[in-house]
Amino acid sequence: MTYCVGLCLREGLLLLGDTRTNAGVDNISVFSKLQHVEVPGERVLGLCTAGNLAITQAVWGHLQEGVSLDGRLATLRDVPTMFQAARLVGAAVRAIYKQDGQALSQQNIGFDCSLLVGGQIGAEPPRLFLVYSAGNFIEATADTPFLQIGEHKYGKPILDRNLSFDTPLAEAVKLALVSMDSTIRSNLTVGLPMDLMMLRADALRVDQRRRIAEDDPYYTVVRVGWGQALKAAYMALPAPEWARNSS
Amino acid sequence: MTYCVGLCLREGLLLLGDTRTNAGVDNISVFSKLQHVEVPGERVLGLCTAGNLAITQAVWGHLQEGVSLDGRLATLRDVPTMFQAARLVGAAVRAIYKQDGQALSQQNIGFDCSLLVGGQIGAEPPRLFLVYSAGNFIEATADTPFLQIGEHKYGKPILDRNLSFDTPLAEAVKLALVSMDSTIRSNLTVGLPMDLMMLRADALRVDQRRRIAEDDPYYTVVRVGWGQALKAAYMALPAPEWARNSS
Repeated sequence: MTYCVGLCLREGLLLLGDTRTNAGVDNISVFSKLQHVEVPGERVLGLCTAGNLAITQAVWGHLQEGVSLDGRLATLRDVPTMFQAARLVGAAVRAIYKQDGQALSQQNIGFDCSLLVGGQIGAEPPRLFLVYSAGNFIEATADTPFLQIGEHKYGKPILDRNLSFDTPLAEAVKLALVSMDSTIRSNLTVGLPMDLMMLRADALRVDQRRRIAEDDPYYTVVRVGWGQALKAAYMALPAPEWARNSS
Repeated sequence: MTYCVGLCLREGLLLLGDTRTNAGVDNISVFSKLQHVEVPGERVLGLCTAGNLAITQAVWGHLQEGVSLDGRLATLRDVPTMFQAARLVGAAVRAIYKQDGQALSQQNIGFDCSLLVGGQIGAEPPRLFLVYSAGNFIEATADTPFLQIGEHKYGKPILDRNLSFDTPLAEAVKLALVSMDSTIRSNLTVGLPMDLMMLRADALRVDQRRRIAEDDPYYTVVRVGWGQALKAAYMALPAPEWARNSS
């Protein structure tokens, strides 16, 4: 499995993904699930993938070589808007389904893939999309500024409680790392290292592209600090009168 | 869906379940998923259920009337040990499968149910089991003192991080309520009110059986206090140098 989360905020965009893939629990590998395309001053896009690795690698490979959209061959380097970028990724997914779907089905393997496509092109604000295995997609908005793929449930409460469109990027990094850390602790199929990409609105270049491993100093601060803070927070809550006093 | 969690600790046992059932998202009802049997001074058992309501109600109904186990009719009021109680619940599940499984399958409905069975009988310590839809089961141990059924992922990180066999019951109540609150906030199919049962080791009676609604004073303390504490905790973590300083 996988866990990837994308945050589309006033200050910019953050994509974070783990790197674990597994075929069963006894065949675990490290593959990056975060790709990006950068034309400094003109566009910057990131892509996170979840699902069957053969499918998601095929989608990315197809995107690299050009996908037919509205009768012409396009790539993420030349689509004019982020909406068209999401359409292009959807078209790539549909092309791979057309190519592989039946053969997978004959082996009783579902066509399992989902993708986050985030970035900024020209004068548009940063935008973030979640593309489904059917090639259709939804877009994050100020009301719901984050989208998740893969093992999304463990890391959702911290985002539901604390993230808003106006959360500063530097604060959002903390929340995303806590969300990932909670997932990694509770689910073996999500694992370190993780890949992070951050871009600031209107910079039109990658601000940060980092691989974060277990010994990463900042991740250690978050991991240890968050654990201690959670413990202190629950210890500070009063115990219920009825549980203390019962006998 | 449903979320129920059982905690089997040195001091005693806690069962907590929500009360929402849904057939689709447009047909939501309140049903208690927590039942108990009490023979003061002799035994106390609680049962939490998740899955198809018709199945879980049939299992509970069958348990009330007596289930055939090893050639004789038994109920939770007369099984000699908690292990036999778990076997009895498993036998009830299998009996309902035998009765309803094929008809459900013909309607393309899976035989979806899981149960927590916890309690204490006589001189045995409190024990907690998770019974699967196949009627087989696992038991909580000091290494993993909690078991969950239903929508378990949202509320798992807080337990993974903080709960141990030696956590006092009064503290465990907080963790269980936070676990439930996180689930309710992130998943519409889990909803208030919740039902709680607590028993202290060797008391052989129900210590607390409470229905906790939205306006419950202690739940309000936990809900509001936890939200504030989480926010303070993540605000107190330093932002990464590279996210602050990038430009």
